[in-house]
Amino acid sequence: MNLATATVRHEIPFHDVDAMRVVWHGNYARYFEIARCHLLRHFDLDYHDMEAMGYLFPVIRMDCRYVSPLRFGDVALVTATVVEAEFKMSIRYRIVEEKTGRKVATGSTEHAVLDGDFNLLMPVPLEIRERFHKGDKPSASP
Amino acid sequence: MNLATATVRHEIPFHDVDAMRVVWHGNYARYFEIARCHLLRHFDLDYHDMEAMGYLFPVIRMDCRYVSPLRFGDVALVTATVVEAEFKMSIRYRIVEEKTGRKVATGSTEHAVLDGDFNLLMPVPLEIRERFHKGDKPSASP
Amino acid sequence: MNLATATVRHEIPFHDVDAMRVVWHGNYARYFEIARCHLLRHFDLDYHDMEAMGYLFPVIRMDCRYVSPLRFGDVALVTATVVEAEFKMSIRYRIVEEKTGRKVATGSTEHAVLDGDFNLLMPVPLEIRERFHKGDKPSASP
Amino acid sequence: MNLATATVRHEIPFHDVDAMRVVWHGNYARYFEIARCHLLRHFDLDYHDMEAMGYLFPVIRMDCRYVSPLRFGDVALVTATVVEAEFKMSIRYRIVEEKTGRKVATGSTEHAVLDGDFNLLMPVPLEIRERFHKGDKPSASP
Repeated sequence: MNLATATVRHEIPFHDVDAMRVVWHGNYARYFEIARCHLLRHFDLDYHDMEAMGYLFPVIRMDCRYVSPLRFGDVALVTATVVEAEFKMSIRYRIVEEKTGRKVATGSTEHAVLDGDFNLLMPVPLEIRERFHKGDKPSASP
Repeated sequence: MNLATATVRHEIPFHDVDAMRVVWHGNYARYFEIARCHLLRHFDLDYHDMEAMGYLFPVIRMDCRYVSPLRFGDVALVTATVVEAEFKMSIRYRIVEEKTGRKVATGSTEHAVLDGDFNLLMPVPLEIRERFHKGDKPSASP
Repeated sequence: MNLATATVRHEIPFHDVDAMRVVWHGNYARYFEIARCHLLRHFDLDYHDMEAMGYLFPVIRMDCRYVSPLRFGDVALVTATVVEAEFKMSIRYRIVEEKTGRKVATGSTEHAVLDGDFNLLMPVPLEIRERFHKGDKPSASP
Repeated sequence: MNLATATVRHEIPFHDVDAMRVVWHGNYARYFEIARCHLLRHFDLDYHDMEAMGYLFPVIRMDCRYVSPLRFGDVALVTATVVEAEFKMSIRYRIVEEKTGRKVATGSTEHAVLDGDFNLLMPVPLEIRERFHKGDKPSASP
């Protein structure tokens, strides 16, 4: 599999900023998710697609390293990359501030694939893995 | 119907406060909902109960007046009161800061009752209205 | 004053949707704010500008009417319009779903202008009002 | 230093639950923070205290493992424990569902201590470390 990747552009709204005037750290999970959904939609694997196939797709682990802050009005470029989709699904994230190019954060999420009875499916079902191979679609970029 | 009412105590967390160091105004909808759910649960009318009866219960209007700010560490006392449950469901809110007793905000929400096919039910179905009458349960207070 | 207006395009993320699979009603305050900030920035009147002039600019009232739901993946077109900027600042909002053009919600916010000692300034200071007149800038649209 | 620990009780509100009817994974950062603030306040080290001493206290890393879901109405018992406060500040979290006692999640955060000019202070300043030693205060528990 090629490393599948997508980048979304996200302008920081006022309500994402905390009393220290930087983006509250917990909001990065939202930025990661926006980029991840954008990436997975590209492979017809977003929440609706997974559900239509009868799968659940919960986050089982997440981490984030905060390198430099984002402020109200900054533009975050959030890149999501699939790094594993065989035994579990692992996605890596990188956030860069648009104007300066400075690195803001890195992180990752791991996802389990469950069937409708909440059984863990391992390895990842073939019909999911195949979608990552289906094409050499160019990187999505909104 | 007696005016049914419930008050919940909510300590303001850091992540609810904005760059001006006061609770961001949009968070009041969350405080209202916590008090409303507490109140409705008291009458066996929370989201799960409504759903079990086959109803949807969307918010169709909301307003809030902001009188004085809440800060990190303040304790909000949020009171929800059912003011109408005949043709639609209307709930009124009042938030007071615990230590000083100062008035923080007032507001209201209106809710429609829909059946499973998204048809508006008006007046509010009898089996819902009856639950408000079922007892002279004392005001809930956590 | 011409009616100053700006529209922002907002794709609904998964985390804005509730257990009923529609955007949770409290999130509309965030959508309104994104459009409002976009509009005010256009007149050099966003949070930072107001603060640089020595003013605070709190929301003192908000309301929203919910007409039809937004779902994960829908695109909301959120329009903010200044309807008064003389005695207080009033802004009106309208949300439309992009693909179908259906009306989703309408609402409004009112804002007070305070000086650094939290005194209410009424009417709105001239240096603020003048910024709305400064040009016949075209509507902003991202 | 004894392992300082505090547990808070958090009832899951409707707005924390996503379309899969479980708490959206990003909300765990909020639960962690509520427990952490409760713990640090116990040692006079919450945000306000740190700021009064002239320090900033940003989160520089966070992780979470999701073991079992929380649903609307569940009660989460969120325990925060200081595991290091010498070279950096590290806090560990554990969430358990109150009624069943089942394990919901574990996680950790790391925090840097910065002075007012954003210089990293390493080791953690003595006046901070001393506060953890100041007493054998009992575990806080709301």
